[in-house]
Amino acid sequence: MSSLKYLFSPKSIAVIGASRTPGKIGYEILENLKEYGFKGKLYPINPHATEVLGLKAYPSITEVPDEVDMAVIAIPAAAVPSVLEECGKKGVKVVVVISSGFKEVGNVELEEKIVEIARKYDMRLLGPNIFGIFYAGSYMNATFGPRNVVPGTIAFISQSGALGIALMGWTVLEGIGLSAIISVGNKADIDDADLIDFLGQDENTRVILIYMEGVKRAREFMNVARKVTTKKPIIVLKAGRSERGMRAVASHTGSLAGSDVIYNAAFKQCGVLRAMNVEEAFDWARAFASLPEPKGENVIIVTNGGGLGVMATDAAQDYGLKLLEPPKDLMDKFRRFMPPFGSPRNPVDLTGQATEREYHGAISAALGDNRVHSVIVLYCETAVADPIKVAEGILKAKQEASMEKPLVAAFIGGVNTARAIKFLNENGVPTYPTAERAVSSLAALYKWSSWRRRASQK
Amino acid sequence: MSSLKYLFSPKSIAVIGASRTPGKIGYEILENLKEYGFKGKLYPINPHATEVLGLKAYPSITEVPDEVDMAVIAIPAAAVPSVLEECGKKGVKVVVVISSGFKEVGNVELEEKIVEIARKYDMRLLGPNIFGIFYAGSYMNATFGPRNVVPGTIAFISQSGALGIALMGWTVLEGIGLSAIISVGNKADIDDADLIDFLGQDENTRVILIYMEGVKRAREFMNVARKVTTKKPIIVLKAGRSERGMRAVASHTGSLAGSDVIYNAAFKQCGVLRAMNVEEAFDWARAFASLPEPKGENVIIVTNGGGLGVMATDAAQDYGLKLLEPPKDLMDKFRRFMPPFGSPRNPVDLTGQATEREYHGAISAALGDNRVHSVIVLYCETAVADPIKVAEGILKAKQEASMEKPLVAAFIGGVNTARAIKFLNENGVPTYPTAERAVSSLAALYKWSSWRRRASQK
Repeated sequence: MSSLKYLFSPKSIAVIGASRTPGKIGYEILENLKEYGFKGKLYPINPHATEVLGLKAYPSITEVPDEVDMAVIAIPAAAVPSVLEECGKKGVKVVVVISSGFKEVGNVELEEKIVEIARKYDMRLLGPNIFGIFYAGSYMNATFGPRNVVPGTIAFISQSGALGIALMGWTVLEGIGLSAIISVGNKADIDDADLIDFLGQDENTRVILIYMEGVKRAREFMNVARKVTTKKPIIVLKAGRSERGMRAVASHTGSLAGSDVIYNAAFKQCGVLRAMNVEEAFDWARAFASLPEPKGENVIIVTNGGGLGVMATDAAQDYGLKLLEPPKDLMDKFRRFMPPFGSPRNPVDLTGQATEREYHGAISAALGDNRVHSVIVLYCETAVADPIKVAEGILKAKQEASMEKPLVAAFIGGVNTARAIKFLNENGVPTYPTAERAVSSLAALYKWSSWRRRASQK
Repeated sequence: MSSLKYLFSPKSIAVIGASRTPGKIGYEILENLKEYGFKGKLYPINPHATEVLGLKAYPSITEVPDEVDMAVIAIPAAAVPSVLEECGKKGVKVVVVISSGFKEVGNVELEEKIVEIARKYDMRLLGPNIFGIFYAGSYMNATFGPRNVVPGTIAFISQSGALGIALMGWTVLEGIGLSAIISVGNKADIDDADLIDFLGQDENTRVILIYMEGVKRAREFMNVARKVTTKKPIIVLKAGRSERGMRAVASHTGSLAGSDVIYNAAFKQCGVLRAMNVEEAFDWARAFASLPEPKGENVIIVTNGGGLGVMATDAAQDYGLKLLEPPKDLMDKFRRFMPPFGSPRNPVDLTGQATEREYHGAISAALGDNRVHSVIVLYCETAVADPIKVAEGILKAKQEASMEKPLVAAFIGGVNTARAIKFLNENGVPTYPTAERAVSSLAALYKWSSWRRRASQK
């Protein structure tokens, strides 16, 4: 597996099929690599150019006067085998085959051939039929997707190309930070098991999110996953749950999706968390990206809206979170931050009169009490409490607290609330637009933490 | 019930407690009324001012030299009874009691007293303990919430104040159009049954969304709901589902939440759709606000990403939608808008090469075929298909179609995709950021339509 280090941190990359025409894949990948600030060497390969994007170009990879760790290949499928032979002779460690036109359109033989060539030269192969790879740690955006990926700690593996690229753009819009994006496409060689093994040991990655339509080497995947999930969470979004969905997968990827019951059981056995949709998967990942593990099960909900508190309470029961009955001394502390008609019980209702001061005080009381293990903060936009100020009050309470505890939030309101949500997310407080999504994300953390403890004891 | 017409379309409104101090509730309500463009007459009532916000003020409502249909009351609770007496003597038809400090804080007697006074003078009473009422049809924003509510066809009834105001702001941010917003608070007189009866006949309202913690007059509510749901959908977000949530409701509103099993059965019996969270409730409402009723069960999914198509297929099974097996002649039509490796089956996969032309062509084929009854369009942002152009292509297909059919969309991507989502929503195509939310919304339409047909036959 150590050869995968060249996939994430190559010292030099050749882009075979580098183009001078904007819009062409071979242009976009080279431009992304260059503009995102890849620190290693870049070698455009193009037989018809001496220069591409200001970089000296070579007619063939064999002409590059230097070692090449990785080759990104964006040329028609039929030409891939001969280029791979050249890569092999050059001593390339890993090839990233962007090109499509292999097994996904029925060209099984051509796909087998490129795998054979890669094996012959001891090269690892990512793809084919992919949009590339991104790794924040080496400033490498070797994709033809969006450029300005936000660096972070979520590694995202996608079996779907179009969806993967679209979600890349969505993470930029949402400010979701990624450590890596790997388009796995046909998984002719490198597959999920390889990648989670590497990412499990990658210190830049705190959580792994996989969009999966089918797994290859199920046994290996489970073995590796069982190890990795004791260190960091793996979230899988497995499409093709329904009978018809499975058929759609088959027609889409040419691979069998397999029974969903089996997938469910397998994921459970190896501690993989299964998300049911994209929103949930990234909601959970955002929580894992910044929250510490909880030290116990007692959750406190703090709110300025009774109704929102009730909805969070319902969700806590749905998702299996345990709400603490606050002891009298803690209730007395909470009472200092609410009018007489507030409620110091759980949910702690600061009422619509609450400002940043009351939020700061009540959250500090909860974070400072060792009978409280996690806190959910809810906020309805009101005229008396500016959302940005409330967000700052929450952050201050978190920063002042001597104990590190999971803290998530849900903010409901207009344009200033949207800004406050962004601000909190950027500052390590996972914040959502509904109470249910905040509760579900904290519950996912509890679920993983409980698995990790059980699995570690074995 | 006809007296409720004065609640929605009064010819004149007195604001009792109108203040000259920005930030005060009596200032904010008058300013919202004035600035939102209320067409009737406005009378600020303030014993210490001759003018408020440029309007002539009166020391008491009895001094107003004109009929007053509605009085909005924003003064301390203790002063409300005597003011109500004055309103009664003046012949006011409906009083909107913003003031809090009644049953919700244990002042049951004071609440009973104001109801008694209202009854004595044959006045209807909204509240107390509310943020006001908005009705787009009369340009009336008699709330102290956000001002620039987007006019539309969704009527929103909220039992929660803080949450209601916060959601008001959220609808502005999201561009969700509302016909009415009614804060019902303690429901001392006017309650859900009254309101759905009125809104059921209101031609500006296509769908009613209720945030509810507990129902008063359950029997009346069910009787009216059963009638109304044969004409337009009612969505209820009922908080306090869990045991602990019920206790939170009790401490929050002082009212009993009642068993959730009973609520579920009751809603089902009268065709009320129950949403589980705010996101789902408004997702459904947006679909109801613009979609025609489906003429049959056959749904077609059109996508440019296989993975997204698979997820929508899974969701269709989860939510009970029936996907059409496209007959051969229809598949042939679809094939004209995809490369050879696309799929004309359902989901129709135009592949990542699809542009607005292919979307327009495939959607037109589906909308023009009378074996197809609803269409779900999915789009992953790609370099070849600008999201705004794809959105325009979809809209064009819809506008050109001779048959009106439900059409929903899910768009995944970055900032331009977010713009396209907004554009489609503004133009009557309910569009969501995940496939599941689009499918769930179309499924809600089917569920209501099926209820309506069954109930109408009885």
